[in-house]
Amino acid sequence: MSHVFDAQTAVTPLEGTAAGAASGRYSASLTDDWRVGGGVNGGFQLGVVGAALRAHLPAHPDPVTLTAHYLSAGEGGPAEVEVDVERAGRLATVSARLTQGGTTRIAAIGTYGDLAAAAAAAPAERLTAEPPSLPAPERCIGPEQTPPEVLAMAPMMSQLEMRFDPACAGFAVGAPSGQGRLSAWVRFADGREPDALSLLTALDVLPPVTFDLGMPGWAPTLSLTAHVRRRPAPGWLLLTQATRNLAGGMFEEDCEVWDSAGHLVAQARQLALVPRG
Amino acid sequence: MSHVFDAQTAVTPLEGTAAGAASGRYSASLTDDWRVGGGVNGGFQLGVVGAALRAHLPAHPDPVTLTAHYLSAGEGGPAEVEVDVERAGRLATVSARLTQGGTTRIAAIGTYGDLAAAAAAAPAERLTAEPPSLPAPERCIGPEQTPPEVLAMAPMMSQLEMRFDPACAGFAVGAPSGQGRLSAWVRFADGREPDALSLLTALDVLPPVTFDLGMPGWAPTLSLTAHVRRRPAPGWLLLTQATRNLAGGMFEEDCEVWDSAGHLVAQARQLALVPRG
Repeated sequence: MSHVFDAQTAVTPLEGTAAGAASGRYSASLTDDWRVGGGVNGGFQLGVVGAALRAHLPAHPDPVTLTAHYLSAGEGGPAEVEVDVERAGRLATVSARLTQGGTTRIAAIGTYGDLAAAAAAAPAERLTAEPPSLPAPERCIGPEQTPPEVLAMAPMMSQLEMRFDPACAGFAVGAPSGQGRLSAWVRFADGREPDALSLLTALDVLPPVTFDLGMPGWAPTLSLTAHVRRRPAPGWLLLTQATRNLAGGMFEEDCEVWDSAGHLVAQARQLALVPRG
Repeated sequence: MSHVFDAQTAVTPLEGTAAGAASGRYSASLTDDWRVGGGVNGGFQLGVVGAALRAHLPAHPDPVTLTAHYLSAGEGGPAEVEVDVERAGRLATVSARLTQGGTTRIAAIGTYGDLAAAAAAAPAERLTAEPPSLPAPERCIGPEQTPPEVLAMAPMMSQLEMRFDPACAGFAVGAPSGQGRLSAWVRFADGREPDALSLLTALDVLPPVTFDLGMPGWAPTLSLTAHVRRRPAPGWLLLTQATRNLAGGMFEEDCEVWDSAGHLVAQARQLALVPRG
């Protein structure tokens, strides 16, 4: 039952590190399998940070909110994650830093807890957000329609099965919708089911929403804030992301992740730089 | 031309601190004038953190994105802000910590820059968000209709002139709309004009949106991420905040701030705990 993503995000405590202590250091690696263009996907890197935090916080298994500032592009190779516990109670607040060769890739701060206990203790729900309306996965645009040169440029796309809403997949053929929205079904290529950890990664795997505005190119993320609200049900995840305010050379990008049971299981907001075109 | 908010958020470098250095420490204070119930308003505390960051980053005058995790309730009295510069280029990324008597109130991470230069360099705008539709300020519900016992419980309300949309002010008389949305005109009581710094505070001055869901009581903020997108024009600010996903004992709260020129000048998302009722 070993899955690729779990091996890719595995961390090992460095000498002197004890889980639950005030601070700890974990060795990790950033695999080129999650490369997209010149760097390793930011969502995957967030998953690595999340895996180190989970290892360090045995009493707090789930990310609840995690904000990452991306300071330099992650590269394939060894990495280290430092964790400092700011406060631990029913929830734990932590700072974390992902480095490679002494250079900081990500500086982060987050709060961990137990989402299963939270859902059991507070079953009341007031959900007014609505999931996007997409054709069934088999009627969406998937890997079999993705040009091989795109897959070669973005190996991360082969880690997942992403099936895009035809209504917003026009960017791939030079005909973006102009709405500033992208939606897709997403699951792991090897059948791994989603969990709270993998939601951190899912929140940043779609192409930049600027693709749908006719602005192709890399849109560097300054910061991303993830809220993980519930452990997801097995099956497809439904992702949608949009921007409503592109100005001053920056745009906000809101991503929502819905699970197969119809719950809004995670939300992210990032601030990114508009591609230079 | 001295205004109350500037005096309230004033910071002084502690001995050995030089602006622009890799780290610095600033003395500050949390005034009881911004108290609401048992603690000092989180938005005001964010303004104090922002003032210390501004003091420490002379080449980066504006907050661009700032995420705060609230670890304990701020009290009236002296405070200290520690700043660590993570990276400085066209943008500067910093960590910050607000403490009182050695206890951390806020752990934060943010990115600073120059919003005037950014707006001048990239005039293109794609704004699909729409401001809320409110009656004119004089037809909204203002301080003259606020019971004296509320003002005594929340002195912070006297720092501002807040004029609530009658459509969502029913919570004050026990008749919440149930929509999960609050909107209001806001300006400083002493006529101070808004600026990028004061937007940090504006993003967290409305009551919790749970008031409008019939859930009165304190809704502790776990974390708040602010995006400041543009220096605001003088005049009234228009604030609106909403939740779309209350579940597991938590809710996300999105706040938007519009300026008098019609720009969406700031956005915040927080994750808060549902009031215990």
